[in-house]
Amino acid sequence: MHILVSMPSHQGDKARDWAQALQHRLPTAQIAIDTGAPVDQTVDYLVTWQPRAGLLAQVPNARAIFTASAGVDALMNDPTLPHCPVVRLCDAGMGDQMASFALYAAFHYWRGFDRMRVAQNRASWSPDTGAVAPRPSVGVLGLGALGQVTARALREAGFPVSGWSRRKRDIDGVSTYAGSAEFEEFLAQTNLLICLLPLTPDTHHLLDHARFAAMPREAVVVNLARGDILVEGDLLAALDNGHLRGAMLDVFATEPLAEDHPFWAHEKVVVTPHIAAETLVEPGADQISDNINRIERGDKPLGAVDRDAGY
Amino acid sequence: MHILVSMPSHQGDKARDWAQALQHRLPTAQIAIDTGAPVDQTVDYLVTWQPRAGLLAQVPNARAIFTASAGVDALMNDPTLPHCPVVRLCDAGMGDQMASFALYAAFHYWRGFDRMRVAQNRASWSPDTGAVAPRPSVGVLGLGALGQVTARALREAGFPVSGWSRRKRDIDGVSTYAGSAEFEEFLAQTNLLICLLPLTPDTHHLLDHARFAAMPREAVVVNLARGDILVEGDLLAALDNGHLRGAMLDVFATEPLAEDHPFWAHEKVVVTPHIAAETLVEPGADQISDNINRIERGDKPLGAVDRDAGY
Repeated sequence: MHILVSMPSHQGDKARDWAQALQHRLPTAQIAIDTGAPVDQTVDYLVTWQPRAGLLAQVPNARAIFTASAGVDALMNDPTLPHCPVVRLCDAGMGDQMASFALYAAFHYWRGFDRMRVAQNRASWSPDTGAVAPRPSVGVLGLGALGQVTARALREAGFPVSGWSRRKRDIDGVSTYAGSAEFEEFLAQTNLLICLLPLTPDTHHLLDHARFAAMPREAVVVNLARGDILVEGDLLAALDNGHLRGAMLDVFATEPLAEDHPFWAHEKVVVTPHIAAETLVEPGADQISDNINRIERGDKPLGAVDRDAGY
Repeated sequence: MHILVSMPSHQGDKARDWAQALQHRLPTAQIAIDTGAPVDQTVDYLVTWQPRAGLLAQVPNARAIFTASAGVDALMNDPTLPHCPVVRLCDAGMGDQMASFALYAAFHYWRGFDRMRVAQNRASWSPDTGAVAPRPSVGVLGLGALGQVTARALREAGFPVSGWSRRKRDIDGVSTYAGSAEFEEFLAQTNLLICLLPLTPDTHHLLDHARFAAMPREAVVVNLARGDILVEGDLLAALDNGHLRGAMLDVFATEPLAEDHPFWAHEKVVVTPHIAAETLVEPGADQISDNINRIERGDKPLGAVDRDAGY
């Protein structure tokens, strides 16, 4: 059995970490690390994150492709993607990280740390900027594995939480909305939007000027999913015209974010460099090796992507 | 029964809010709001926060003095303080606020938001600044009502938590240290210090250069108690020499913080304007009116300060 591990070069030693963790779990497997050279042997399983251009066309006989991530949009857009199962990680340490990032954002705006930062920049002692207020209503957009963990953590921290998903979900203590028919209603009662949607043709540029306008005045947008789910220019306009209070953005249409992008210096924007949730190698390698064993004995892998839905 | 409500003028309508809430609970009481003029009648109960100079000498027959705060240091230092019970608020909405502020601080440093802010200021895409790391060990200094609520909330959010208090306390899941003999040991294992101590002669300037040096390299100091518990110049030195990673400060030796104070522009300092926990009028008025009823029927009030301990 041949496994190829391919990670972007800016990920440093990640490919080696994944290869070692998989070798430990699959001692008889032949595991190679992609060097960028043409792939000169049959690959049974590809383990990748943001595969380099042309790689997928070189693994036509793969029995499964595993992404070391929760999102698969980078794979689904490649017309040479083989017709085998595409399997993404489920949580793998990301739920706790995503939930804590969302909690941080909720505390940040609830307690006025954005306004207090502006006051600090002006050396202005302004207790009103941090005055006690009721917790904002948080809306979690996307109720997959990460969205559900995040919604629960916010509810446990005392925030009123609602959630929206393509298909109706029931989560204790969370008001849920579903489908495009209920989307505006969901937005209208959301003071703090946490975006955890997969990027698909349906969600591409979903959050545009009309959707920002549908949110209450002084609402906040937190995007932890994929940059292209929102229209960056429309977000800037909604911040600049005063309708939105702020944005905390971990993902961008183009990453790394260009040095001259207006987000960097914008007083109402917190930029973080796509770190909200990193997949952890150990639980990730557990999931991938379990799935390889399933396929080898003739079972279907767990967590395979629905190609029609795109996630 | 005469009740006098006295609040600093910069508190705006607070005095009126307290007077109304007390009147609602004690319909037969005569309640006056201090205008700064000499007090011309016998005051049975004083309800105050940061009383103006000379006020305490004008209420010599008070049967109790209530502070609309958790700390009583502003009263205890006044030699004209009458010999009646001094009663402080217990929680009154402050526990939840203090715990959420401490959680925010813990998430802020754990997830690297301090370093990511510096990177954003430089328009630098630096994923290392937010790389996933184990949760830091949080040490709660002071285990009174607010310290206990805060320690529990941090533990429930997954942080390893220890606590220090003058006398030994037992809190489920929290390693506790007590007394001066165990203070350095407590500091040596604390990556993130949350100060919630009362200000007394024993705690005045407790956190000085020696105590900062006793903390691990890259430790963080969060002061939510009173400014004079730490030596501001020593804190600046420990930040500037690189031993401490950062400080989040809600309280200061002099408030409002002077416009030219070095904390404002310091890259490693987050300044907040004494807003970590505001007493809420409704639960506060419940406690004070209950205690007045207790005293009127001959019982002792709950929550009276131990004058020897100073808190």
